[in-house]
Amino acid sequence: MTPTTDGDVTFRSRRWVKPEDLNAHGTLFGGSLLRWIDEEAAIYAILQLGNPRAVTKYMSEIDFASSARQGDLIELGIRATGFGRTSLTMRAEVRNMVTRERILAIDRIVFVGVDDHGRPVPHGYSDITYERDRLPRP
Amino acid sequence: MTPTTDGDVTFRSRRWVKPEDLNAHGTLFGGSLLRWIDEEAAIYAILQLGNPRAVTKYMSEIDFASSARQGDLIELGIRATGFGRTSLTMRAEVRNMVTRERILAIDRIVFVGVDDHGRPVPHGYSDITYERDRLPRP
Amino acid sequence: MTPTTDGDVTFRSRRWVKPEDLNAHGTLFGGSLLRWIDEEAAIYAILQLGNPRAVTKYMSEIDFASSARQGDLIELGIRATGFGRTSLTMRAEVRNMVTRERILAIDRIVFVGVDDHGRPVPHGYSDITYERDRLPRP
Amino acid sequence: MTPTTDGDVTFRSRRWVKPEDLNAHGTLFGGSLLRWIDEEAAIYAILQLGNPRAVTKYMSEIDFASSARQGDLIELGIRATGFGRTSLTMRAEVRNMVTRERILAIDRIVFVGVDDHGRPVPHGYSDITYERDRLPRP
Amino acid sequence: MTPTTDGDVTFRSRRWVKPEDLNAHGTLFGGSLLRWIDEEAAIYAILQLGNPRAVTKYMSEIDFASSARQGDLIELGIRATGFGRTSLTMRAEVRNMVTRERILAIDRIVFVGVDDHGRPVPHGYSDITYERDRLPRP
Amino acid sequence: MTPTTDGDVTFRSRRWVKPEDLNAHGTLFGGSLLRWIDEEAAIYAILQLGNPRAVTKYMSEIDFASSARQGDLIELGIRATGFGRTSLTMRAEVRNMVTRERILAIDRIVFVGVDDHGRPVPHGYSDITYERDRLPRP
Repeated sequence: MTPTTDGDVTFRSRRWVKPEDLNAHGTLFGGSLLRWIDEEAAIYAILQLGNPRAVTKYMSEIDFASSARQGDLIELGIRATGFGRTSLTMRAEVRNMVTRERILAIDRIVFVGVDDHGRPVPHGYSDITYERDRLPRP
Repeated sequence: MTPTTDGDVTFRSRRWVKPEDLNAHGTLFGGSLLRWIDEEAAIYAILQLGNPRAVTKYMSEIDFASSARQGDLIELGIRATGFGRTSLTMRAEVRNMVTRERILAIDRIVFVGVDDHGRPVPHGYSDITYERDRLPRP
Repeated sequence: MTPTTDGDVTFRSRRWVKPEDLNAHGTLFGGSLLRWIDEEAAIYAILQLGNPRAVTKYMSEIDFASSARQGDLIELGIRATGFGRTSLTMRAEVRNMVTRERILAIDRIVFVGVDDHGRPVPHGYSDITYERDRLPRP
Repeated sequence: MTPTTDGDVTFRSRRWVKPEDLNAHGTLFGGSLLRWIDEEAAIYAILQLGNPRAVTKYMSEIDFASSARQGDLIELGIRATGFGRTSLTMRAEVRNMVTRERILAIDRIVFVGVDDHGRPVPHGYSDITYERDRLPRP
Repeated sequence: MTPTTDGDVTFRSRRWVKPEDLNAHGTLFGGSLLRWIDEEAAIYAILQLGNPRAVTKYMSEIDFASSARQGDLIELGIRATGFGRTSLTMRAEVRNMVTRERILAIDRIVFVGVDDHGRPVPHGYSDITYERDRLPRP
Repeated sequence: MTPTTDGDVTFRSRRWVKPEDLNAHGTLFGGSLLRWIDEEAAIYAILQLGNPRAVTKYMSEIDFASSARQGDLIELGIRATGFGRTSLTMRAEVRNMVTRERILAIDRIVFVGVDDHGRPVPHGYSDITYERDRLPRP
């Protein structure tokens, strides 16, 4: 089970679709899916910015390419695509682990690192860390 | 407490931000917010399409204008903006009930009515119902 | 979709019954329903009392007139019916959005505004606000 | 730790108040409390009626005597008080396990045993079972 | 409904298996079950140690003897089996209330009482309290 | 951010500790942690056994080495360690992503592949797949 990538995205978290994740039709609720992506992007952003206070600022358009059903195995992928002065831009993809069918993709998710008062703080980075050596400052 | 509108959007559901809705910073989790909007849009789409099987197909870009904290009162607004052959397009806004500050807006959320096999079905409508006389066919 | 009223109650929040809301029979769990009503009444009370710390004190008898199933659309209505020195009394109704069948009604729900130590505080109001100009004092 | 009773109520389930159970004030959410009681009453009713399909029909008035905070230990008590032809009436109490302070009491909760179509079915009992020998018929 | 014991374990909490507790196969999710046991053991440990800050340190092996389905009634039993200087050891059992079939057993669950900094504190007890007179010190 | 391994375990899923995951002390609830591990192991087992119906049968002892707090980033690792005729044995580790401190380890988690009636079925495998070419048979 080697790490899998689709283009440049590496899939780093998995979910098993359970009854609590379903909408009233018995398929995966779009809202649950967006919740998983937002959490995954937050984790990625905190590690890249080295700041535990990273907040969602923007998502580009979302195409719900296919759905999922109870029991399906899902994987979530995030990749950094750019740095602003206080922000990080990422690309997200979600797909079925077995069929590798794409469930959705979001081209740009922007997180901003903020201070205790919620004000953006410059992060001083312009490249992606692959070594995870940017410890969040508590 | 008359119904409130912001431009053409009427706010039709409310939420009280509780600990279960917070991210790890203690502010409203973006994923929870997206979950509420997706549910609200689904309800609106089911009533407009007269079809209990309406699924999320597309969301245009999302700007997280401001956040919310534990105890804040939130209201969710949806307005139909267009009909395709099998789809409905809506605009969504979320704001703080007290300060009326915008939390986020999504210009276009597209739902499609489907049959039992998940295939799109034409709905035959081209105008919005304000009388809720389109009963979902079970 | 004009705002709807049943007698004097205006329905101001909606829910879509999902698997997570069901009891073990596959019908809407009474406990989930009571949770939604308590949240809706809290929001209403906070706005009427102008106090973010409003707590449930009393509910009169509850008749579960009919149930709901997965996929049903529900609306929740609250109306202020009286003011005490520190309290607000409300009437609540829940119904199916499509059939307009009543699911339950509660004649009196009493909330009390309290201070930081949980002690009741007089609110000074004797009439309902329809303009929402009573901002909670943080 | 012998079983404890308050008057005739025996306390049979416990809960530990966690962040997910709190309202926006940081005290126990009334809706969570009602959810726990409804589940406890359902379990009791299923065993007494010998019918796995027992549904909530009525609750008499509820006095929220005191509240609870994160970390508090809560116990839930239910006692059968009467049988109708298709129904069971119970009394419920909730209290703090440590201080034994009452949190709330509900004098009458009525459950009805129903068939697969939701129609009430006579249960044929007029006394309480203490031996749990009425196995639900699946 | 007299209190029930299986060997030396007294069953003190109940659960009704609802859709939110199921795995993707429609049977009781092992993770939900472990969550219930951990909560039940925490409550028991807090009362025995007289310390509201009791944390899970160890669980011995777990044999999932049988499963449960939606609508099943479950009971959870805990019994103290030993005291260390700062710890309490318990045995846990879970069974079906109706068939009395064992769902799982854990021979040893160890909780430790800690101070505000998470450091173990001696509790000074060597025997089980059956009178619940050890009030947690807040 | 290359894939990380600790000994032979590869960490494949992440979680961000949110208020809903905390116990009443404000630290990560042991029950939430066990829930995440059980889900992660189920996903791994389904892919290795090529059977969507894989159920938890056994967990060896669990040492809760350290805890986690709100906002901590957690990673979950699973590795197959052996095959029985109908079963798969795995090792699980959970650690803090930033400090790499171990939170817990479980030496052996055993899942069994079952048929629609819950009876164990031989899987015919004796080696681990790294290519994920064993598609679950729906």
